[in-house]
Amino acid sequence: MDKEIFDKKLTSLRDEIDDIDSQLVNLLKKRRAVTTKVGELKSEVGMPIYAPEREEALLSKRRQQAQDVGLNPDVIEDVLRRLMSDSYVSQDASGYLCVNPHCKKVVVIGGKGQLGKIFVDLFERSEYKVQILEQEDWPNSKSILDNASVVIVAVPIRLTSMIIQHLNDLPESCILADVTSVKESPLYEMMKVHQGPVVGLHPMFGPDVTGLVKQTIIACEGRNPDAYHWLLEQFEIWGAKIYNVDAAAHDQAMSMVQVMRHFSTIAYGYHLMTEGADIAQLVEMSSPIYRLELIMVGRLFAQSPVLYSDIIFSNTDNIAMMKRFAFRFLELLEDVEMGDKDSFVEMFNHVSEWFGEYAGDFLAESKSMLLKANELKRH
Amino acid sequence: MDKEIFDKKLTSLRDEIDDIDSQLVNLLKKRRAVTTKVGELKSEVGMPIYAPEREEALLSKRRQQAQDVGLNPDVIEDVLRRLMSDSYVSQDASGYLCVNPHCKKVVVIGGKGQLGKIFVDLFERSEYKVQILEQEDWPNSKSILDNASVVIVAVPIRLTSMIIQHLNDLPESCILADVTSVKESPLYEMMKVHQGPVVGLHPMFGPDVTGLVKQTIIACEGRNPDAYHWLLEQFEIWGAKIYNVDAAAHDQAMSMVQVMRHFSTIAYGYHLMTEGADIAQLVEMSSPIYRLELIMVGRLFAQSPVLYSDIIFSNTDNIAMMKRFAFRFLELLEDVEMGDKDSFVEMFNHVSEWFGEYAGDFLAESKSMLLKANELKRH
Repeated sequence: MDKEIFDKKLTSLRDEIDDIDSQLVNLLKKRRAVTTKVGELKSEVGMPIYAPEREEALLSKRRQQAQDVGLNPDVIEDVLRRLMSDSYVSQDASGYLCVNPHCKKVVVIGGKGQLGKIFVDLFERSEYKVQILEQEDWPNSKSILDNASVVIVAVPIRLTSMIIQHLNDLPESCILADVTSVKESPLYEMMKVHQGPVVGLHPMFGPDVTGLVKQTIIACEGRNPDAYHWLLEQFEIWGAKIYNVDAAAHDQAMSMVQVMRHFSTIAYGYHLMTEGADIAQLVEMSSPIYRLELIMVGRLFAQSPVLYSDIIFSNTDNIAMMKRFAFRFLELLEDVEMGDKDSFVEMFNHVSEWFGEYAGDFLAESKSMLLKANELKRH
Repeated sequence: MDKEIFDKKLTSLRDEIDDIDSQLVNLLKKRRAVTTKVGELKSEVGMPIYAPEREEALLSKRRQQAQDVGLNPDVIEDVLRRLMSDSYVSQDASGYLCVNPHCKKVVVIGGKGQLGKIFVDLFERSEYKVQILEQEDWPNSKSILDNASVVIVAVPIRLTSMIIQHLNDLPESCILADVTSVKESPLYEMMKVHQGPVVGLHPMFGPDVTGLVKQTIIACEGRNPDAYHWLLEQFEIWGAKIYNVDAAAHDQAMSMVQVMRHFSTIAYGYHLMTEGADIAQLVEMSSPIYRLELIMVGRLFAQSPVLYSDIIFSNTDNIAMMKRFAFRFLELLEDVEMGDKDSFVEMFNHVSEWFGEYAGDFLAESKSMLLKANELKRH
């Protein structure tokens, strides 16, 4: 084909695409306007933004339509999920129903911190009276805490215990809660210092969350759950899912997922450096899956070491468990050294069984993730 | 608000959304029709499907438009990236330019395997004559290999060396290549057995890839690159990016990313099981980031152990390196045991520096990934 004819044809097709994409942006603008209205309507009556059945119904209708017109339904679903996740953010911008208008005051200790800020903002948008207690406010702590209906301790983990010990003069009906990533010990301290309702919370999200929709907050019962039930309900109004669990079970699970994973990711980064790996080359040579893994290692080192050392050093109970991991690692390595493929495969099958149907579900879910990882690649 | 009025208002807004979503599907159908035409046009002249500058220009125009109408440009970008990634698949469905019409025959040994199949399909769609040599075809191997211009060894890693040893009678001008995930040893064997052009390839993607756009193929020079240059060019026509690297450097990098990561992920799965973790509870309690990590562990156990044991056991050179990892892990754990936060933080900062600007880039990229992980969550 003549170069000139080819260029002309290509330009004309690309113009068509640009035109369609421009229509697309306008359509998404219209959609956004309607979902904002839905958010406003729901907040008037205190209905949660996130409606799983509606989401499923909406997706299945469009998947069907996509199929009917010969499009890949997964593409439509991915696009709609992205739009819905964005619409939660826009709906989140409006106010929320206040579950307990009788609440006199919410005090967030550490309310200027990354996590505390999120709660302050949400309480305020639900029309609660909120006061912040930061380090410099301790001289006035008595008046700030006076008359509080809820006190939430949202300070760095290493300060939590010390702060709780100062809270021995709260109104008896006041709800005392913390948001630390360990639960047994702060809960014990809170119960000791305060005779009213107590609950340990662990918000399972980081500071750059946009709204609480689909995010989990773990709640560990302390004392008098009937009295703090409205607080959990308020979190649900914000979109969060509450998971109730015993504090000891929480701490054990977290040592497996949080502490152990943080620690071994850090150890892997340290190992890469010490082995003299060439990071630029590793990135260039990565398949989508290794790229994703490298991202998850590297992201950690863009953050404050204190964030991680606090979590790791405050859970010294886990040292024995982590040692067991290292020894199991070496034990499996021995199979490799001995060329004992059979026992390796046997162990593998054993773990597969243990994962059960989660393994297959995770494989399916990871495919979408890996597709996404490759979409994000720029080169 | 009256329940009836609320329901009526909500239904009417939801109908509006459904109407917009239906228009959206139709618009995407139109878009797809145009991108398919682009693919056909490009394949006529052999222009690669993936055009990074066009992609960037298209995205930046729409980001600007989004900003102008008050939408989040990231949402538009994510949606368009998803559509483009899908359009590569549809464009991929058509044929490709044949870079070397003089090529008499491509033989893919193991062409019915998961990876071999992908190459057979792509060669055929580029109008090459392709023959497959599977185990049952060895009695006729002489006539199959006779007159071949390219022979690609795509058999499981444990068979590679044995198969290569049978290829001592290829036409001198024939290109001999393998697609194994280690490169030094197969390259050595190929050079020994064949006097013509030799190249070691490592496709950095799995069997469920949809097209090669943005995928990487690593190429390790064996002999006479001028003679096999057209083959790499053909891969580029299919959308792949070629990364040239020395075989030894390849193997070292892979031992760090592939072998080591596979192995430690397996060890972590084994550890979870042996510690008696409750997988259902872990999933329920996971934040997006732990969920993503659990997914990456569990996905592995949904696959064949042989896939992993082959890779791990064929790289026994790495045992010492992996032992060093375990010892570093224990060494860092000692800091925790001694409560030596300072040296932990120092080590952390050291690794941060080593990651350099990749750390920040990875943190930004991981945010999109975590958003996606949460979008995929159902319930």
